[in-house]
Amino acid sequence: MALSAVARLSRLWFPSGGIAASATEDAHSKLIRAGFLRQSNSGMFHMLPLGHRVQDKVERLVAKHMDDYLGASRVSLSSISAESLWEKSGRLSDVASELFRFTDRRDVSYLLAPTHEEEITTLVSRSVKSYKELPLRLYQITRKYRDEFRPRHGLLRGREFVMKDLYTFDTDVESALKTYDEVQAVYARLFSSLRLPVLAAKASSGSMGGNLSHEYHLPTPHGEDRVISCYSCDYTVNEEVADASPLGEVAPDTPVEIWRGITKDRTTLVNVWYPKWERLRDSGELREYTSEDINLAAVKALVPDLDTGVSDALSFWSTAIASGTQTATVLINVVDPRVKSTLPRYLNSAASELPGWPSAIGSPKTLATTLCHSEGRDGEPLSLLRIHTGDKCPRCSSGRLKVEKAMELGHTFFLGTRYSAPLGAAVALPSSPQPSPMQMGCHGVGISRVVGATAEHFADQKGLNWPMAIAPYSCVIIPGKDATDNDAQEVFHAINAVSGPGMETLDVALDDREKSLPWKLSDADLIGFPLIVVLGREWRSAGRVELQCRRLGIKQSVELSDLPGMVQHLHSEL
Amino acid sequence: MALSAVARLSRLWFPSGGIAASATEDAHSKLIRAGFLRQSNSGMFHMLPLGHRVQDKVERLVAKHMDDYLGASRVSLSSISAESLWEKSGRLSDVASELFRFTDRRDVSYLLAPTHEEEITTLVSRSVKSYKELPLRLYQITRKYRDEFRPRHGLLRGREFVMKDLYTFDTDVESALKTYDEVQAVYARLFSSLRLPVLAAKASSGSMGGNLSHEYHLPTPHGEDRVISCYSCDYTVNEEVADASPLGEVAPDTPVEIWRGITKDRTTLVNVWYPKWERLRDSGELREYTSEDINLAAVKALVPDLDTGVSDALSFWSTAIASGTQTATVLINVVDPRVKSTLPRYLNSAASELPGWPSAIGSPKTLATTLCHSEGRDGEPLSLLRIHTGDKCPRCSSGRLKVEKAMELGHTFFLGTRYSAPLGAAVALPSSPQPSPMQMGCHGVGISRVVGATAEHFADQKGLNWPMAIAPYSCVIIPGKDATDNDAQEVFHAINAVSGPGMETLDVALDDREKSLPWKLSDADLIGFPLIVVLGREWRSAGRVELQCRRLGIKQSVELSDLPGMVQHLHSEL
Repeated sequence: MALSAVARLSRLWFPSGGIAASATEDAHSKLIRAGFLRQSNSGMFHMLPLGHRVQDKVERLVAKHMDDYLGASRVSLSSISAESLWEKSGRLSDVASELFRFTDRRDVSYLLAPTHEEEITTLVSRSVKSYKELPLRLYQITRKYRDEFRPRHGLLRGREFVMKDLYTFDTDVESALKTYDEVQAVYARLFSSLRLPVLAAKASSGSMGGNLSHEYHLPTPHGEDRVISCYSCDYTVNEEVADASPLGEVAPDTPVEIWRGITKDRTTLVNVWYPKWERLRDSGELREYTSEDINLAAVKALVPDLDTGVSDALSFWSTAIASGTQTATVLINVVDPRVKSTLPRYLNSAASELPGWPSAIGSPKTLATTLCHSEGRDGEPLSLLRIHTGDKCPRCSSGRLKVEKAMELGHTFFLGTRYSAPLGAAVALPSSPQPSPMQMGCHGVGISRVVGATAEHFADQKGLNWPMAIAPYSCVIIPGKDATDNDAQEVFHAINAVSGPGMETLDVALDDREKSLPWKLSDADLIGFPLIVVLGREWRSAGRVELQCRRLGIKQSVELSDLPGMVQHLHSEL
Repeated sequence: MALSAVARLSRLWFPSGGIAASATEDAHSKLIRAGFLRQSNSGMFHMLPLGHRVQDKVERLVAKHMDDYLGASRVSLSSISAESLWEKSGRLSDVASELFRFTDRRDVSYLLAPTHEEEITTLVSRSVKSYKELPLRLYQITRKYRDEFRPRHGLLRGREFVMKDLYTFDTDVESALKTYDEVQAVYARLFSSLRLPVLAAKASSGSMGGNLSHEYHLPTPHGEDRVISCYSCDYTVNEEVADASPLGEVAPDTPVEIWRGITKDRTTLVNVWYPKWERLRDSGELREYTSEDINLAAVKALVPDLDTGVSDALSFWSTAIASGTQTATVLINVVDPRVKSTLPRYLNSAASELPGWPSAIGSPKTLATTLCHSEGRDGEPLSLLRIHTGDKCPRCSSGRLKVEKAMELGHTFFLGTRYSAPLGAAVALPSSPQPSPMQMGCHGVGISRVVGATAEHFADQKGLNWPMAIAPYSCVIIPGKDATDNDAQEVFHAINAVSGPGMETLDVALDDREKSLPWKLSDADLIGFPLIVVLGREWRSAGRVELQCRRLGIKQSVELSDLPGMVQHLHSEL
């Protein structure tokens, strides 16, 4: 067998730029300090050699799952989409504020595509005419664009990012749902190979359309979503679509608090009235509530025009009142059922008795007011406050819920005919010559986000710590001062001789940079190679190397002849 | 050895869309008809599965050349660049008309990068401070953008395209020129592995800057450049920078012709005076000249403000005259040396005697006029007419020149300090603590163009015809009606068992689509697989297959046991 060429770190560009670690450094700062990437503009990043290697491995892993387990065909669509197509689908105005838009030299309007339903549906509509050509599964891995209001956390919320998007086309709902289930199973397999404890949560379809969707969430304190899951049953949902928790009770004299929001047109104030505390039925514990506990999704269900991104609603509204731009309805009172009975007392109060009420505008009762109560399908009162860990599961009778902040890494949508109908993607069925719109699905995985989220999930004080599947190298060999380059090459070839299922992704490198052993060891910890092999003191005397694995707490002296077997074993564990 | 999974064409999306071939179909139309790609907007394309496979193979081949032969590190820069950076380099106004520009929600101005000198120089300037970190070679393969005035010929001139761009950083000119030579050698190796007869022609550096550059040209009738090469010596140049050919002679009574251009500000008319014919010195042959023979690069050297894209200069100028917007100098006469002596006669003529002269504006001598003659460094007269095939080589004494239309597939530039100086990329040298600007180079290969140009170069009446290195599959197995799927799998595994140097790129597929044998054979010809293996009539009776290779004119009956050896041999030939 020919020896493979030795991968040498001296040949790779590792810009450190002498960046010092801060005490509270997050994973994104570690990615910068270790030389994986640099920010070029707000929410935009240049991937450097290490970062490119990781991203490329994520892409290949995802592509393998699409090819081998879903039989999908890979395409690569233009990043530029004509606005006219988005007008046709009726989605342009919904998402306009998040689009990068421009015109060409002939004044044709384009946008940088954040997703490709319009383009791929049009493409398929022109070629596929018969049910015999379905099911069809097409995916791509390309850069996507979204002009985020507030880009943050590095790769976790960027304005330019790499995404895998899979589009599925079926003849009828039944086969489309079967496709949906298959995609769900492959997503579970994918995240498991990344060693990420991802939760598949039922989710809202938002501006995408359709009525069945799941988000794939990694629990993390940086997450911007909350996922609710039951310890006992398989109930797992995004808080936005959670069934309301059963109500507790509050004493009649419980003080109320007000959370204030405003509508998107800045003319209507929204007061959400909620109890300051509640005594829990079973534990007897007193739970205090703050504005953080308001379930905005539930409020939005009552006031769809609510702008959830505004923090000083009252000042906007005072301005509207002062300038006389307010409409007939200027105040909406949204009431949590627990304070329904105590509310009238407040509503009849003078302005001066209300917490934080601007006296200049008179008391609430002098204004045009709407009163809203949240109710379930059967008229039962629904809570406007968030579910807490420990609350009862609405699905099973016995379970308790867990609430976690989480980061969305993927999404699956069953779209039905949301795009195929307006864009004319239809096939003739055997039962009828009349073309019938295809049943579509779209299924994303945020490649850039997976890189950022994986970095964060495994990072510790010493540095990053990649799972084997996407590490920039699986294993780095570091020769100490008593070891020659030939010695290091011998170890390299010994490890590389390992073969067997899964071993084709084993990727060994030799750290031959002109630096000291301690510097290299600490750099290897920062970069986060899963395995480190050191040719240390015992190399010359006993032909033994030191095998290190920070994640599993391994640091042991190993005979060279035992090394390949151990690496193979650990490779499948990490 | 484990059997590899059988690649089946039935699992790939091949949209044919029932497009009929036209009699004069070009390679781009064949790429569409065979299902490689579709145009989405003018000059923008969606790559379909076959096209994505080819493009991906070109990318991997180019990456391998950068990694293995140049030791370059791969990065992946944002496609979006801030305009402010392009103002800093001073290039924004030069290239503005070809940029897609936009602003974000905070009114920051961005552009879709056509190339990345500004970004990468800034990135490197922030990390690299010492000569010890040089030489540095960084490359990427990403989408680039250029709002072409007239996109055409499919992938050959698009507005969105994939490019490999390599940037090199050296401490001094000497090492930068050594780097330049290395890149040139690797480019020769790359194009040779694509089986493309690419010419490395000395070229103009244009808006890129620097003073040494080469273009890598594939001769083709669709080419927009002309490359001049000598049959005897290694003189190879883009016509734009060709040394002027030695002058022939014209009889004193030879009639003159005028080619008319106008300056970019549309106020100054440019008349180029040239002879209607010339008697060639050595052959005695009479050569006629038309406006097609004007060497616009030579004219532009005299009148840098000339707009070469205008065809009706006279009407623009008449409008300028009529509206009184002309400046003091309104007419430039540029004179080919061959007609210098005959010109005064014309210039003193009345307007009515001049060919196509608008009588309304009076005779040329009544206008403010500049007279230009083209001269070499030593004052010798230089031709304004193009070099023709058969002209003498200006380098060697004996050679004859060949003029070919050609398509640029790559470019190398030695940039010197054009970007490192304004963007502050400098290193401390051992000789002086004062930072010295890095010596840079930039080196592109048009990935999309290579796909389009390779398609065109090898296509014939029957279809496309890919070189082995980038074919969507190296070899397709087509079972006839007497062969089972198991038979086809047997042949698949027999071929796949081939190993040896270079064989890792062997990529075999089985055409198991539900179509007839003749349909599959003609589709395989259209798609252009280098090798076709048919399980035909002799399969059942004698265990023989038919091996076809259109490029080499092979169609022969082969024993299954001989097949792997033959495939291996042909793989290295194609």
